[in-house]
Amino acid sequence: MALTIGVDIGGTKIASGVVDEHGRIIERALRHTPADNPEKVAETIAEAVNELAGRHEVEAVGLGAAGFVDETRSVIRFAPNLAWREEPIREKVAKLVGLPVVVENDANAMAWGEFRFGAGKGESHVVCVTVGTGIGGGIVLDGALYRGKWGMGAELGHMQVMPGGRPCGCGNVGCWERYASGSALLMDAKENAAADPSSAGCLLALAGSAGAMLGEHVSEAARQGDGAALAAFASLAAWLAQGMADLAAILDPSCFILGGGVSGVADLWVDAVRAGYAERLTGRGHRPLADIRVAELGPSAGLVGAADLARIR
Amino acid sequence: MALTIGVDIGGTKIASGVVDEHGRIIERALRHTPADNPEKVAETIAEAVNELAGRHEVEAVGLGAAGFVDETRSVIRFAPNLAWREEPIREKVAKLVGLPVVVENDANAMAWGEFRFGAGKGESHVVCVTVGTGIGGGIVLDGALYRGKWGMGAELGHMQVMPGGRPCGCGNVGCWERYASGSALLMDAKENAAADPSSAGCLLALAGSAGAMLGEHVSEAARQGDGAALAAFASLAAWLAQGMADLAAILDPSCFILGGGVSGVADLWVDAVRAGYAERLTGRGHRPLADIRVAELGPSAGLVGAADLARIR
Amino acid sequence: MALTIGVDIGGTKIASGVVDEHGRIIERALRHTPADNPEKVAETIAEAVNELAGRHEVEAVGLGAAGFVDETRSVIRFAPNLAWREEPIREKVAKLVGLPVVVENDANAMAWGEFRFGAGKGESHVVCVTVGTGIGGGIVLDGALYRGKWGMGAELGHMQVMPGGRPCGCGNVGCWERYASGSALLMDAKENAAADPSSAGCLLALAGSAGAMLGEHVSEAARQGDGAALAAFASLAAWLAQGMADLAAILDPSCFILGGGVSGVADLWVDAVRAGYAERLTGRGHRPLADIRVAELGPSAGLVGAADLARIR
Amino acid sequence: MALTIGVDIGGTKIASGVVDEHGRIIERALRHTPADNPEKVAETIAEAVNELAGRHEVEAVGLGAAGFVDETRSVIRFAPNLAWREEPIREKVAKLVGLPVVVENDANAMAWGEFRFGAGKGESHVVCVTVGTGIGGGIVLDGALYRGKWGMGAELGHMQVMPGGRPCGCGNVGCWERYASGSALLMDAKENAAADPSSAGCLLALAGSAGAMLGEHVSEAARQGDGAALAAFASLAAWLAQGMADLAAILDPSCFILGGGVSGVADLWVDAVRAGYAERLTGRGHRPLADIRVAELGPSAGLVGAADLARIR
Repeated sequence: MALTIGVDIGGTKIASGVVDEHGRIIERALRHTPADNPEKVAETIAEAVNELAGRHEVEAVGLGAAGFVDETRSVIRFAPNLAWREEPIREKVAKLVGLPVVVENDANAMAWGEFRFGAGKGESHVVCVTVGTGIGGGIVLDGALYRGKWGMGAELGHMQVMPGGRPCGCGNVGCWERYASGSALLMDAKENAAADPSSAGCLLALAGSAGAMLGEHVSEAARQGDGAALAAFASLAAWLAQGMADLAAILDPSCFILGGGVSGVADLWVDAVRAGYAERLTGRGHRPLADIRVAELGPSAGLVGAADLARIR
Repeated sequence: MALTIGVDIGGTKIASGVVDEHGRIIERALRHTPADNPEKVAETIAEAVNELAGRHEVEAVGLGAAGFVDETRSVIRFAPNLAWREEPIREKVAKLVGLPVVVENDANAMAWGEFRFGAGKGESHVVCVTVGTGIGGGIVLDGALYRGKWGMGAELGHMQVMPGGRPCGCGNVGCWERYASGSALLMDAKENAAADPSSAGCLLALAGSAGAMLGEHVSEAARQGDGAALAAFASLAAWLAQGMADLAAILDPSCFILGGGVSGVADLWVDAVRAGYAERLTGRGHRPLADIRVAELGPSAGLVGAADLARIR
Repeated sequence: MALTIGVDIGGTKIASGVVDEHGRIIERALRHTPADNPEKVAETIAEAVNELAGRHEVEAVGLGAAGFVDETRSVIRFAPNLAWREEPIREKVAKLVGLPVVVENDANAMAWGEFRFGAGKGESHVVCVTVGTGIGGGIVLDGALYRGKWGMGAELGHMQVMPGGRPCGCGNVGCWERYASGSALLMDAKENAAADPSSAGCLLALAGSAGAMLGEHVSEAARQGDGAALAAFASLAAWLAQGMADLAAILDPSCFILGGGVSGVADLWVDAVRAGYAERLTGRGHRPLADIRVAELGPSAGLVGAADLARIR
Repeated sequence: MALTIGVDIGGTKIASGVVDEHGRIIERALRHTPADNPEKVAETIAEAVNELAGRHEVEAVGLGAAGFVDETRSVIRFAPNLAWREEPIREKVAKLVGLPVVVENDANAMAWGEFRFGAGKGESHVVCVTVGTGIGGGIVLDGALYRGKWGMGAELGHMQVMPGGRPCGCGNVGCWERYASGSALLMDAKENAAADPSSAGCLLALAGSAGAMLGEHVSEAARQGDGAALAAFASLAAWLAQGMADLAAILDPSCFILGGGVSGVADLWVDAVRAGYAERLTGRGHRPLADIRVAELGPSAGLVGAADLARIR
């Protein structure tokens, strides 16, 4: 039985797990990320991996991290929340654990996990849109993870959707993730509440004040029919639909998977995305509509996907 | 020696040619398109093919046509300028010529031609943008033509770049090709001239009147320093650069190829595209810049590409 | 009985008329504008005035011309279609005719004519929007013509309505008149026809070709139900409504008058303007709606208005 | 000596003062607004007025309040922060104080105060833009306060400047005050900080967290060179300049006065407004530039203006 270990390296914690060939997690290990000391991240990963590998027969390790992974899948060129620049994480970890290691962008790993064992099972052309603080993306084409020439593909959140629009941390303006993400949802809800407090009574009561408003307040207020919150979700759905229609013009996928933190309340918005997508797809009427599905593996998708990618290294 | 025939089925003429394995055209045949009688198109193609096949040892035929080609590469689902709906052109032609036939979208065929024998030779990840009346697109990923799940991929001209923008024939608004194509160039030049005739003296003199203005007047006026014409080219370049930066966020190609009729005057605008792309690429500074090249095969790219695709059917 | 002469100085012709205190034109005189010789315009005006004044007892002369009129109502600072800069037209004509002369911007003169004798009779706060090649404006507040501090008020066509929008001859972009005028109507119709020729069959048949399309083709096609033409009128009406709602936020008028060449087919669009205005007015529901009327005096409004303004010099 | 009393009715306090004919405040009285009992507001005003009138020889009273004042200057039709609908405040207060009373919109009263005794002294055509939570406006034309036909004029904050833009409490989208006000400044600063925290280090340190950010943090951070704060002020200035250029196209004023809370830090942005206005004014080069000045009377402008308007009732 081929077991591999997947590691999801986040800014606050490092989640590891032994995964079998059916995508099942056999055992987990969790560590805090030594965020103040980037040098020690490899050691922390190795500790967790060695602990797990001591109890299971493991053949390889897959690491997933937010950031630009180079085309050799060895070096993380730039990872904002780990303060890494040109970090040779593959080699560092491999030395410490004595196993083959592969590195993958976290959104790619999630997409692969969903494609292999979750909402994308059985599909061939899948675009995964991770709706969290920003937008992460992963693309599977003809059954293979698509990385681009230099490993920088699928940075879906940085397509421009609004010329002259909201500033983005990437240095551009009007990026998709400034309109269709958890932080965009919160920003829209705050704008709506500021513009018309009378439509946001429930939302403001839940949050206490506009400044203290969180995403969960927006979700809860939307469930209670709050106007400002519902309008924010409508905007999120419309922008998701538009960006997905743009992606379909380029990639013509059979299936979109919507994941990330905001997909936890997908019942509030996924039908609006489906309707908006069908209205905006170019060539609609002359082509099939891709399926639009909610991710199934939850927060473990990245760990599972990284482990599986280690198997096909 | 393996020879194949490539056929470029246009709205006014049908260009055929015998092509060798190095992409050289050995002999050509040209026919008028029987546009008033869509039923006769297959016959006209077959006449030309049979004539050429009588003089060369040919193993297969590749057809390229503007329109949506189905995923089996047999049927053209919708071809506006040939008035075709669900046309089983592969079978029709195959019967009449007694040779294997493949069908391909014309922009895909052009991209393949350039990738194999033109500006994309030696590259692995190529995005070809055909700047003509509209925008056509072709994508080569890991050395293979990318078609999407249902053959509808690479409809690059229909990404939305301007919410609420110019109406597009596809039924949407704000599509890329309404801002970055030959017809957009002409429209911009006319707008500029209408807004400020004093800046368009040369352009209006060349055209005779605003109503009679053609693309070549805009090019010639730009060469002579006409303000309205230069502004139109600047807008074309900026919009091309933006759309290409969006495509790079998704596909991370090693190379863009700019073809189509407007690339005949690429010296007027390609440097501005390169500069604009470098300014707009997300993650710039942390990643290589794709090469931006002008197509090399001219109007024969589609024919040559279709012939070569017939070889790897 | 107090008679005055009104003169409408256009780029191609100079229309003069003797007008009584009820706004009736007693006699007219028409001259070609000596456009190639700006120096001779004053002489041509004087000939016509002297001819009329020889047959009627006239007390003063009012001149209306497109351009910026200075605050003393003596000098035309800038008149594009007469090639005038700082032209002391009042003094020149007064010397040649021996009568008091006043000078007024043509759109102001039209607004005053409509206010006194046409669609604005009995109102106190009137905004007149002249929808022609561009947009001209005239404002009557508390029964007096409003000119602004330096005579440059009511240049309504140059409010910005679309940041980053269509270029305008004034040097800015996104001006109202680039979206809500006769030339905008034509531009929109051409864009619509280019985007989707199948929706513009009637319009293209009437025009012969897109390049030969004129405003009257758009109107006639709209009457026949042509999709591209109707969409162009819908856009015109929506932009007129938006700009008028903006003006109401500032000026709170009791009445808008829509004049100019495009108002000749106002039946095609004025109801849509009324509906759009009611939907866009800020504070709607808490305030009365201004009346929206079509001009009544036709092409003579400017002449009649200029004559009447000469009376209250 | 003619003394009058001015009253500034705010949502939290009612400020009254005895004002002489030179705009000097002789004595003040301050009361809390009985916000939970709109019926008692008139009584509270009357108490303050009667107290002051007992010690001074007063001939009339001017009331200023945020809201739509009817054309007879008697009734406040709609005042959001006092929860008034069709409140006959003139009559109520007049009964209780036994003096003539006039009512005016607060921004109009401020504009009048500045025109008579502050930054607008000696001018004839003044547009006052009050930059606070929203934008308030007051217009003086030919030396008279301009109210419009029904008293609703000068609602400058609700001109649309961005089609499809930010939602506004008035029910429209893209209103000027959503881009050029204190709340817009704060929203922009938060957006900038969210997009690129590394540019907002100083701002976030001053505020403690994004949620706790206040306008004064943005001002202080801008003084210290914080990138996110400076960008927010640049955006404020650019939008103010654009809206003022639009107003100049309509009203051609000799002078703009910038007041309201945000004008307390006008040194951070007024030069950028002047530069932006000069770049955006239509007809620039052919017309004088209006003066752009910062208000001089501070928070008392409304009280002083209301008192003076009572004098010319």
